[in-house]
Parts: sequence; structure tokens; C-alpha cells
Amino acid sequence: MKVIVDVCIIPMGVGLSLSPYIAECERIFAAHGLKAQLHANGTNLEGEWDQVFGAIKVCHEKLHEMGAVRIGSTIKAFTRTDKSQSMEDKIDSVREKLQAAE
Amino acid sequence: MKVIVDVCIIPMGVGLSLSPYIAECERIFAAHGLKAQLHANGTNLEGEWDQVFGAIKVCHEKLHEMGAVRIGSTIKAFTRTDKSQSMEDKIDSVREKLQAAE
Amino acid sequence: MKVIVDVCIIPMGVGLSLSPYIAECERIFAAHGLKAQLHANGTNLEGEWDQVFGAIKVCHEKLHEMGAVRIGSTIKAFTRTDKSQSMEDKIDSVREKLQAAE
Amino acid sequence: MKVIVDVCIIPMGVGLSLSPYIAECERIFAAHGLKAQLHANGTNLEGEWDQVFGAIKVCHEKLHEMGAVRIGSTIKAFTRTDKSQSMEDKIDSVREKLQAAE
Repeated sequence: MKVIVDVCIIPMGVGLSLSPYIAECERIFAAHGLKAQLHANGTNLEGEWDQVFGAIKVCHEKLHEMGAVRIGSTIKAFTRTDKSQSMEDKIDSVREKLQAAE
Repeated sequence: MKVIVDVCIIPMGVGLSLSPYIAECERIFAAHGLKAQLHANGTNLEGEWDQVFGAIKVCHEKLHEMGAVRIGSTIKAFTRTDKSQSMEDKIDSVREKLQAAE
Repeated sequence: MKVIVDVCIIPMGVGLSLSPYIAECERIFAAHGLKAQLHANGTNLEGEWDQVFGAIKVCHEKLHEMGAVRIGSTIKAFTRTDKSQSMEDKIDSVREKLQAAE
Repeated sequence: MKVIVDVCIIPMGVGLSLSPYIAECERIFAAHGLKAQLHANGTNLEGEWDQVFGAIKVCHEKLHEMGAVRIGSTIKAFTRTDKSQSMEDKIDSVREKLQAAE
């Protein structure tokens, strides 16, 4: 089952600079062959359900190895059966509506 | 890896009454042997990562079978390495602080 | 406009024990006269939109005062126009479906 | 208090195509003078707390006017006291770490 997710991972107990940990997650997503789009409050991912949630699990395991004692992630997960839609399709469909109204 | 999650599943394209679909998810969590606590905005679950996210996947598949064309879930996932903590422990630790200050 | 929310507030840079900070938020919700239900992964609140999001703002301000340099909150917010529904109504409607099927 | 948020608004009871409703929210964010970055699973916003959550409230009110009987939003909200950081700064700090490791 294909899923499009947004994941925001917060490592706790490792100080205030989170970017080294987020960068490590980006590497893990790439290593899992996932389409990933970094944005200001998380990363959007597209792939098969087990592949995506397996990669997020590896992120938790790796960040724990890096010293994060507690981790809290917020994940939004979207599935649909009527058509195959990519992350770009979702953005384009909104932009079309914006341009049509101009 | 043990995880404690909060999951809120929104089926779209099935009208306004979501409780039949949420009830179906509660049955799926029970069938997966997961500790589940229903609350007003979702369900808290406790178990092994693959078991928990496998159950949420089954919820998406089942709700699609029931006619939900699109599904959007919001999931909060917490892991820690310093101690084994249950859902009840998390609530008790806050309540202890509240009572201590009374 | 009435809203029912679930809020999970993560203070960063204050070590691993978050319960003193969550307890402080519970006091703020009570001081704002909000119906609040603590659960294992957050707190459900019920009230007028400005009152609820004003209280969450005060939580961020207070936790910053207590030493949290960064704070990340995950909020789920639900509004509806067809009927007035309480947090208890939402839970009861799911439980009714579960009992009906037994 | 400045806040950076990610907001994902799901109107229910209005069929499967959500892009007209998301486009309407983009117009509301612009009308509120907010920096907004649309992405595949939501919109990132940057501004003063009351301005940002006031705009999200207007989105709920407008989408209800457009026929959405129920609305569920997932909001991630980040505040910090150590420095003023923009949405671009957050992305750049991760990209710097990625490039440094190449």
C-alpha cells in the first residue's frame, strides 16, 4: 500500500541544535530509496507503507545510538484508492486552483 | 523497539459519522494484542514498533475496504532508552507533580 | 467557534523529565476554565477557539520562563457545524458501536 | 511571540477533492500577511502567534461556510527564545550538515 507521509522527529536530551539529527534522518531516507522532500517543519516521504515506516524506525534507532535518550515524532500519513498521486501532484492541484482564480 | 503512540485516523468520502470506522480500528488494535486507550481525539497504543505500525496499516486497508477512498492519519510516536515506561506511568508522573504542588 | 483539541507540548533543552512542564500546562488549562482531559500522549481540551489557543500560547510563554529554550507542540483541532458535541460524546459514540457489535 | 507552524487542514463531508479548500486557505494566509510555504502535506507559516492562529481560525470558519460540516486540522507549532530563526534558516541548517558530510 502506497503512502505519502510528513514526518517531524524531535530528539530530546541532546541540546538545542537538532539539524545534525535531522540530517542523519535525510541520509536514512535516501538509503531506503525513498522520495524525500525536506521542508521547514519536517520531511515529506513517498513509498510503500512498510518501507516508509521501516525507515522512520531506523531513524529512531540511529538517533538513540547518537545519544538521544527520548524521541518524539509527529507523522501524518495519507493513503487513497481512487488514483495514484505523487507529492508533486498534491502541490500542483492546489496551485492550479490558485492560478485559475487569479 | 517499544513505542507508545497516539493515532487519529480520519476516513474521507464516507460522510460525517466516523465512529463506525474508529470502532473498527479499536477491534483491529485488540486483534493485534495491543494495549489501547481510546480518548476523545484518538487512541493511545503501546507495543513493539512493527506490531503497532502494522496494526495502523491494517486499519487503513480495512477502512478502504469499508468504502473510505482517502484516509489521513496523524500519529505521535514516542521511544526512549533510559527506562521502560507504560502509558499509565506517563499519566501518573504528571499527576504526582500536580498533587505535590497542592 | 467551539473547538475540541488534543495538544502535546515538548519542551527542549530541559533534560528528560517532562512531567513538571506538562503539570504546569494542566494548571494553565484549569486557570483558563477549560475542560481538560490528560491522557498518555497529550491533553484533550474543549472550549472557544481563542480561549483554547490563548491558553496554549500561555503554556509556551510559561515553559520558556521555566527554562525551555525551544518548544515543539503538536495540536489536533476539530470543529463542526452540524451539532454540539462534547469530548465525552465523541468517546461514547465509538463505544456504542463497539457494544452494538458484541 | 513569534511562531513557526505547519498546518494541515482536512475538510470532511465535501467529497474527495480537497485542493479547492486548501487553495482558499492559501488566500487567507496571504490576506493575513503571513509568510506561507505550501508543501505536499500542509503549509508552513511564520508570524506572531495570535496572527497565525487567528488565520487558521478564519480558515475553519471559511471552509465551514463553503460547506465543510466537519474539519480536522493537525498543527505543529515551534517557538524558541535563543535566536530568531526563519523557515529558510531551519532548512539551510540541515542542508549545511548534509553538505559538510559529503
